[in-house]
Amino acid sequence: MANPVLPSSGVLSPLGLDAVRLSPGFWGDRVALNREVTIAHCQEWEEREGWIGNFRGERPRRGREFSDSEIYKLLEAMAWADHPGLPALAETVAGAQEGDGYLNTRWSGSRYTDLEWGHELYCYGHLIQAGVARLRTHGEDTLTRVAVRAADHVCRRFMEGTQTCGHPVIEMALVELYRVTGTERYLEMARRFVERRGLPALADIPFGRAYYQDDLPVRQAQVFRGHVVRALYLASGVVDVAVETGDEELLKAVEAQWERTVARRTHLTGGMGSRHADESFGEDYELPPDRAYNETCASIASVMLSHRLLLATGDVRYADLAERTLYNMLATGVALDGRSFFYANPLQVRVPAVPLDGVNHAPEGGLRSPWFDVSCCPNNIARTLASLPAYVATATADGIQIHHPTPAEIRHGELAVKVETGYPWDGVVTVRALTGGRGRIALRVPAWAAGARLTHRGEVREVVPGYAVADGPWRTGDELRLELPMGPRWTFPDRRVDALRGSAAVERGPLVYCAESVADEPPLGDLAARVAPPVEHHVNGVVELEVAASLGGSSEPSGWPYGHEPDGRPSGADAGLRLVPYHRWGNRGPATMRVWLPVGAEE
Amino acid sequence: MANPVLPSSGVLSPLGLDAVRLSPGFWGDRVALNREVTIAHCQEWEEREGWIGNFRGERPRRGREFSDSEIYKLLEAMAWADHPGLPALAETVAGAQEGDGYLNTRWSGSRYTDLEWGHELYCYGHLIQAGVARLRTHGEDTLTRVAVRAADHVCRRFMEGTQTCGHPVIEMALVELYRVTGTERYLEMARRFVERRGLPALADIPFGRAYYQDDLPVRQAQVFRGHVVRALYLASGVVDVAVETGDEELLKAVEAQWERTVARRTHLTGGMGSRHADESFGEDYELPPDRAYNETCASIASVMLSHRLLLATGDVRYADLAERTLYNMLATGVALDGRSFFYANPLQVRVPAVPLDGVNHAPEGGLRSPWFDVSCCPNNIARTLASLPAYVATATADGIQIHHPTPAEIRHGELAVKVETGYPWDGVVTVRALTGGRGRIALRVPAWAAGARLTHRGEVREVVPGYAVADGPWRTGDELRLELPMGPRWTFPDRRVDALRGSAAVERGPLVYCAESVADEPPLGDLAARVAPPVEHHVNGVVELEVAASLGGSSEPSGWPYGHEPDGRPSGADAGLRLVPYHRWGNRGPATMRVWLPVGAEE
Repeated sequence: MANPVLPSSGVLSPLGLDAVRLSPGFWGDRVALNREVTIAHCQEWEEREGWIGNFRGERPRRGREFSDSEIYKLLEAMAWADHPGLPALAETVAGAQEGDGYLNTRWSGSRYTDLEWGHELYCYGHLIQAGVARLRTHGEDTLTRVAVRAADHVCRRFMEGTQTCGHPVIEMALVELYRVTGTERYLEMARRFVERRGLPALADIPFGRAYYQDDLPVRQAQVFRGHVVRALYLASGVVDVAVETGDEELLKAVEAQWERTVARRTHLTGGMGSRHADESFGEDYELPPDRAYNETCASIASVMLSHRLLLATGDVRYADLAERTLYNMLATGVALDGRSFFYANPLQVRVPAVPLDGVNHAPEGGLRSPWFDVSCCPNNIARTLASLPAYVATATADGIQIHHPTPAEIRHGELAVKVETGYPWDGVVTVRALTGGRGRIALRVPAWAAGARLTHRGEVREVVPGYAVADGPWRTGDELRLELPMGPRWTFPDRRVDALRGSAAVERGPLVYCAESVADEPPLGDLAARVAPPVEHHVNGVVELEVAASLGGSSEPSGWPYGHEPDGRPSGADAGLRLVPYHRWGNRGPATMRVWLPVGAEE
Repeated sequence: MANPVLPSSGVLSPLGLDAVRLSPGFWGDRVALNREVTIAHCQEWEEREGWIGNFRGERPRRGREFSDSEIYKLLEAMAWADHPGLPALAETVAGAQEGDGYLNTRWSGSRYTDLEWGHELYCYGHLIQAGVARLRTHGEDTLTRVAVRAADHVCRRFMEGTQTCGHPVIEMALVELYRVTGTERYLEMARRFVERRGLPALADIPFGRAYYQDDLPVRQAQVFRGHVVRALYLASGVVDVAVETGDEELLKAVEAQWERTVARRTHLTGGMGSRHADESFGEDYELPPDRAYNETCASIASVMLSHRLLLATGDVRYADLAERTLYNMLATGVALDGRSFFYANPLQVRVPAVPLDGVNHAPEGGLRSPWFDVSCCPNNIARTLASLPAYVATATADGIQIHHPTPAEIRHGELAVKVETGYPWDGVVTVRALTGGRGRIALRVPAWAAGARLTHRGEVREVVPGYAVADGPWRTGDELRLELPMGPRWTFPDRRVDALRGSAAVERGPLVYCAESVADEPPLGDLAARVAPPVEHHVNGVVELEVAASLGGSSEPSGWPYGHEPDGRPSGADAGLRLVPYHRWGNRGPATMRVWLPVGAEE
């Protein structure tokens, strides 16, 4: 099956790219744009930057110590997209592999001398994931042979001992290679890498061992911590190991860490990461909108983890978080033209970013850039969008589950259905049987969708958040209709989130909204919104919202910004403040933006 | 005169260490502790870390590329303190100077190959400041000759061309060397370094040229930006150049930058710096309490700058900010034992730090450490406390101005006075004439001290913030008595400071207060304070304050920390919440802390 994650057991079984075909629509359009534009964009930049040339032995070597991994992520994207450029690029990579399977353009000659920062095993992880993708979409070829030789090299070199890599990812890669090849040593190697962590396996560093999750054994941790991408890649691999080894304790440990992280360390957009300095989670309730880091790659890692937990447990909350993250983070990370990207995704930007045609050296949020010194995000977006259909639906013995409503055709066993919807703009989701067949169809009802209704065989009933189910048998043309209530809603933060006190945000369906200001129109520096029902405006197929807010208080400094009386509302009269979906901000040039609106003191 | 800053013109003239002698009291005790404990502590650690050994040619060289500067700061401290260890340490330094005056233990052999990050001119700056201190307290010796040779080398190497250093400090050092020697090329070199900045003079870097104030010419900048210590050291040097060259435009530019920075980029404690990643100012109104960086060195730089602006203009607001910064930042930066230090000074700490006896690798706030990988702060504190008397008072043709009331004897011209006060715990300041004499005595009345009273010759009058003045002639024993109102006061943030919305802080006199919790007693994670007059408690000579607050709401996660209703007050009943002066927090072991208290919704 053409699927990035294929557990041998679990409550739900994934449906892959061969079972789910997206039609034009919110995600179908993005997947097509990715295949047609973004993949070529990434390859072009990797040539220009010399990162592909490194595999040809061009000197001086260019790029960061982990730049090989970007080519592997791109190869994975190409594999899922069945991109014609793959074979040639794979040959280039193969040319740099050494006789014993070692492959790294930076560390050849000084192998494994810096496991903390060298990223050698991290690079293999991405290479192996690319190889797995190729095996599942095409079968054995140069790329898959390179990946298997690298995995075998890793097993020989690291099976004994206490070492691991400063940046996880190889854990989940090896489990998937085990799943596709049946070779048990890959699973055992992954299991050992997981269990070594926190003994500790790595040196202490100024950021502390928590940075790379080496402060505690995985089983003892209470929450995700440290570098977010590292933490979530590791957790994904831990779930994979737990599922394949039947280790319930290990799975429960990750579930508990996920739960606490979602409750205390996750931004409204699903973004994770509150610190720029070490790209890390902050402490509990440290969720600043302006300095939210929310790396695009971290959101991808979060979707990977939630998807694995969903498959293992069938718990709808994992799909709920994945949806939030897909619509507000993944869709935000790439511009509407498919050629520029956000690295960080703050929820507030006070000063418009300066446009940049070339490489962006700083991973700040503000304006999407075509490339970065560290360009993990573009390639990660490319491989994720290329495999996105695999996240849409799952199956059980009794039918299929549609977690993410988007126009598509889904086939599984006897069932073949067509999903039609204008979601996320419209809340009506229609599932029509393309053939006759038996089986239960389950449609996810998000946690925010109180009052949703399901129409089946002419009968309308209210369905609660979770899964709305309807049983067959189905005849060709039979319809199932889910109506999700799409009224805009105000959302307030837990009072322990210090950085958001006194403010509120607006959501509609799965989308988080924001106020965006181009050329300081409207001014967002001093406003107070009214908590009253927002008005909907339909603009070129997008739903925008309008709230009332007093805008344009004084922009003058007060001399000393601390005084003896509580500060009141800004002096401006109430005006309409337009809100746009967060994922669409930053497509109109340099802008300021805020998701959380001060709601001010009522008079 | 024994003074770190001696402008040849300006509204106020500084009084140096020979004119101001501190007696036991808030600052006198700290200056004595610094001389007796902290200076030796620093020297001991610099030997242990090998940074002094670097000057002896011990290999491998140890420490960061700028570690030489720590020895120079320590030498400056020794000079002001007339410390007996100075000559031997100066000989060690002298041994590493090359024939043409070049001196750097890191870059010898690859001179000036990395002006952006190499810190060579920065190190000279601190060396020259140490030399100036020695010239003014002792006269010519080995240290002063080394410093002059280094300065001459710099002038030869850098007078022509466009280069400067990534880290300012040499600008003010060269001006001071000009002031003490009269050699005009030092002033000219400083002037050129100032004017080159922003043309630009340095390479672009991932942080952007604003990081080292090379984004704009100094005259064009509107606000301080980038790395805070760099920005404030540069601004101090700019004031020095402006004063000595009579460049009013340049002085006005710095005044305007200071004004906007104080109004929008300064924490309540006087701390500056909101970002850890690049140790920088954030944007306007980006003032997070938890991630406030507020480097101790930045506060010292702020005092240096405000002192220079005070001397140049006589404007009391510069002394007001210096006082706030001295009591809430400098006094906070070193523990009560004089042997451990804060690098960063956040206004909120959610998780207690882990105690550390050895080197602290991370500049996070939380618990003072004996040493850091980058140990600028301990040495900077040492040199600042050693020269602190020079900041207390100034003179004009008609008398003296006492800016910082603390027990001391001050002599200037005919006047000799003794200052007695329990400030900052008590608001009564008595100035008694020790000899007869003429002249006006001015006492600063801080901006917060509305309702202060001055008693002179039996006459009591209300005095407004600014300077309270009394004219002589004075007879021996004559008294001048200032009473500052010391009632605790609630302080509220400007509504544009997003991170502080819905919270308030308590101040008393010049001191900012905080809630501190050891072993989570009382719990500070979920509280709401009542804005009502705090109650004073006098505890071992320290004034603590008590406010009412509901404490101990739920510590359980809510599942998803964003909901459909505004969050209310915590469920706990009102209890007394003890507040301590911010500068005293973190002396009782690992603790949590917060300056800004949520004030919650009133019921």
